[in-house]
Amino acid sequence: MSINVGDYVLLIYDRKRRWLLKAEEGKIHHTHKGMVNLDDIIGKPYGTMVLSNLNHKFYAVKPTPMDLLLKMQRATQIIYPKDIGLILLNTGVVPGSRVVEAGTGSGALTSILANYVKPSGRVYSYENREEFLKIARKNLEKTGVLDYVELKNKDILEGIEEKQVDAVILDMATPWLAVKLAYDALIAGGHFASYSPTIEQVQKTVKELEKQNFIDLTTLECIVRYINVEEGKTRPETRMIGHTGYMTFALKVL
Amino acid sequence: MSINVGDYVLLIYDRKRRWLLKAEEGKIHHTHKGMVNLDDIIGKPYGTMVLSNLNHKFYAVKPTPMDLLLKMQRATQIIYPKDIGLILLNTGVVPGSRVVEAGTGSGALTSILANYVKPSGRVYSYENREEFLKIARKNLEKTGVLDYVELKNKDILEGIEEKQVDAVILDMATPWLAVKLAYDALIAGGHFASYSPTIEQVQKTVKELEKQNFIDLTTLECIVRYINVEEGKTRPETRMIGHTGYMTFALKVL
Amino acid sequence: MSINVGDYVLLIYDRKRRWLLKAEEGKIHHTHKGMVNLDDIIGKPYGTMVLSNLNHKFYAVKPTPMDLLLKMQRATQIIYPKDIGLILLNTGVVPGSRVVEAGTGSGALTSILANYVKPSGRVYSYENREEFLKIARKNLEKTGVLDYVELKNKDILEGIEEKQVDAVILDMATPWLAVKLAYDALIAGGHFASYSPTIEQVQKTVKELEKQNFIDLTTLECIVRYINVEEGKTRPETRMIGHTGYMTFALKVL
Amino acid sequence: MSINVGDYVLLIYDRKRRWLLKAEEGKIHHTHKGMVNLDDIIGKPYGTMVLSNLNHKFYAVKPTPMDLLLKMQRATQIIYPKDIGLILLNTGVVPGSRVVEAGTGSGALTSILANYVKPSGRVYSYENREEFLKIARKNLEKTGVLDYVELKNKDILEGIEEKQVDAVILDMATPWLAVKLAYDALIAGGHFASYSPTIEQVQKTVKELEKQNFIDLTTLECIVRYINVEEGKTRPETRMIGHTGYMTFALKVL
Repeated sequence: MSINVGDYVLLIYDRKRRWLLKAEEGKIHHTHKGMVNLDDIIGKPYGTMVLSNLNHKFYAVKPTPMDLLLKMQRATQIIYPKDIGLILLNTGVVPGSRVVEAGTGSGALTSILANYVKPSGRVYSYENREEFLKIARKNLEKTGVLDYVELKNKDILEGIEEKQVDAVILDMATPWLAVKLAYDALIAGGHFASYSPTIEQVQKTVKELEKQNFIDLTTLECIVRYINVEEGKTRPETRMIGHTGYMTFALKVL
Repeated sequence: MSINVGDYVLLIYDRKRRWLLKAEEGKIHHTHKGMVNLDDIIGKPYGTMVLSNLNHKFYAVKPTPMDLLLKMQRATQIIYPKDIGLILLNTGVVPGSRVVEAGTGSGALTSILANYVKPSGRVYSYENREEFLKIARKNLEKTGVLDYVELKNKDILEGIEEKQVDAVILDMATPWLAVKLAYDALIAGGHFASYSPTIEQVQKTVKELEKQNFIDLTTLECIVRYINVEEGKTRPETRMIGHTGYMTFALKVL
Repeated sequence: MSINVGDYVLLIYDRKRRWLLKAEEGKIHHTHKGMVNLDDIIGKPYGTMVLSNLNHKFYAVKPTPMDLLLKMQRATQIIYPKDIGLILLNTGVVPGSRVVEAGTGSGALTSILANYVKPSGRVYSYENREEFLKIARKNLEKTGVLDYVELKNKDILEGIEEKQVDAVILDMATPWLAVKLAYDALIAGGHFASYSPTIEQVQKTVKELEKQNFIDLTTLECIVRYINVEEGKTRPETRMIGHTGYMTFALKVL
Repeated sequence: MSINVGDYVLLIYDRKRRWLLKAEEGKIHHTHKGMVNLDDIIGKPYGTMVLSNLNHKFYAVKPTPMDLLLKMQRATQIIYPKDIGLILLNTGVVPGSRVVEAGTGSGALTSILANYVKPSGRVYSYENREEFLKIARKNLEKTGVLDYVELKNKDILEGIEEKQVDAVILDMATPWLAVKLAYDALIAGGHFASYSPTIEQVQKTVKELEKQNFIDLTTLECIVRYINVEEGKTRPETRMIGHTGYMTFALKVL
């Protein structure tokens, strides 16, 4: 598979220095390790090596949905990939699923969900702040999944228009206020998920879930630890992300 | 969506007491909380409540791929959902991906991968122990994804027959021996992943990856912590799983 | 240093099978690995090996304060050594310190504190449940530190009689109710510590500390992970303790 | 207890802005929050509040051994308090213990050990780099425990001169080379501890311990997680220290 004009490529120097670029003729990418001429990668296969004018090695690879997410324009704090993986598996979202999400934010979670419900599924994503929706739309276009998403410029608290959806996934400041709406929108046996940084949000959301006919309430957090593997120096990394958010899951029953 | 004869349902009493059952007419399911007559759920929607003869509430829901995985017949230690989510996102496996996996084991990881590459993608799964393959085949049939999997009764160390695959995912005792084979089977820019319980396996695999033209080597572990959320008693659970396995990721370049 | 009649010894078979025994003449200790005759260790140095009648090796060592704590008769859940170490260092308790503690419980924390304030310091330990005090007294006698402890059969909420103490350490159900009393009992610059399993206890205690003239409020938890180190099998242990309690520290100022 | 000329005080503005100062007449301490005149605290009790010339509140408290450690001049990476607490409890070091330590480094661990073996115990601390010993000596003087420490300008690998010590604690690059020496220096039933950042150091040290007559080999790591407790915002802190070092413990038997 070769890189064509207009394709997005991830240009990698190392773990920290990597850029998401659109392959365009005559375009020069400037870095501290020299200039990379994008003409040198057009027509080449993904994974190709290219030298900067300072003779440093760069690699042009095909970005994964996660790479795209990490390189998105961010209007808001985004959910980490580690947490998205768990949300995906715990809500049972698969190709074909119909999912309601709020809020859209920068479209990070939206883009991953869209990638996994496609081709026949749909993500209905609520966001009342128009400036965020604009950013999200651009991000989803860039990641090539806009066709599988319905962006809705609405506050989810004013009502969920979809019915019988497979999952409702909330990443918002007051998820507890949307619990009843989520119940009504879900298919029987459908999945609720909420992502919240603070324990107070979790406490209120769980309280509300208990009032509705939800079962299987589960709250967890996911911690990823990177290991430096090097002969004679193998050890977990000194600094790590200690907390992103708690995830709460529940199942609608009748 | 209602439960038909022949469908698999997850019958839930609580977090720990839950059974994967095939809905069959006249079938009685015996539990410590009484007998559940499956006739009571046939024709009802997923999410329906049913009373046992001792008047306890049970719920019949549609199992997610993860529920199916957790209820599979296990010939071997299976990969945990938390780890599968990370493997999925880090390898960029999406609907349409072609993935090589070894070993098949009980087919747990296989079943999740198949669920996410479908409908147009494929999982090629290597396993040289025939008795495991039999169990895996049954599990994949049960989970409804056998059509998206090619089970291969071969030792991956004898060679990977597929070429230009998007990802190679190893869950085997000696992943380092398959690194060169993975490199050859991968498309340029393709993803390598290895899952190993011990640090020595990681050390050897990383050493081998460094010899091949892989970049972006990353080793991590994922720890999930369950939180008990209850008014006045909110706290992380006393006991937890401390370790399952390390995951190592890498990217093939040219 | 040799083992005399009346000394306590820790008899070790392996990590899980170990007993705290009083060396007595003619005493036989029965285990699944055979009988150990305590006469075989009396007069021998600590660290001595002794064979059971089934020819299994046992070792008689001098118990540390932590060994004594772990083998105490327990009336209540005790604080773990990992947490005690942090409490000790964060409160600055050293030989000579005067410390108020509540509740005594089984005397576990009391015994460690006493070991580190001796010879010139004192632990004042409040416990209103007489049956616990009895157990604690026996435990402190056994561990040889009763001389450094003043056991008080009183509810700390009725008042702290000591003044100008260096530290107040609370391990009780309602620590927030004792915050004001702790403030009054502490020397200026003295240390407050509270150990609580639930987040609600922490929330209430912090709120109360903020009302008093305490600074440097710090809440943390301590997680210990055991590593299995064995050639080719090195890895964190599969199961671990996920949570014991949160610790909150503060400093009294004027 | 009031602050006298020559006493060390910890001057606290907040969690991150705090200074260890010697109370001297006429001394002015400059900060971003204004100047603090040390004359204002001399003769006052510890815990006293003092205003800077910009009217910000500062508190002068008595430093704990841990405060002193954290404010020491550092020639080397020091062991964290969380790890020191565990070493203390696992090795059973108490007032009166005789402990061998290597290397001295900046004297951080030395200072805590000295604080807990005093008044009758002793720490024998080996360090072959003279420039470190100088720094350590100054640090121990400052922390007031030099009398309980014997600083030895020697490489521990050339031999441990002390015999029948209660504990040997190693914080050095090659602890495995000192295992045999530690065995010979320890009293029967005495405690070995080693602190190492990398897993390879642990692997080699454990291998060596297994060759000697050590039992009860235990390797662990200690992770401390800070919790931000604030109404509506309670959550673990976003960033944390992911790894400092592994600790390996063992018991000498005959």
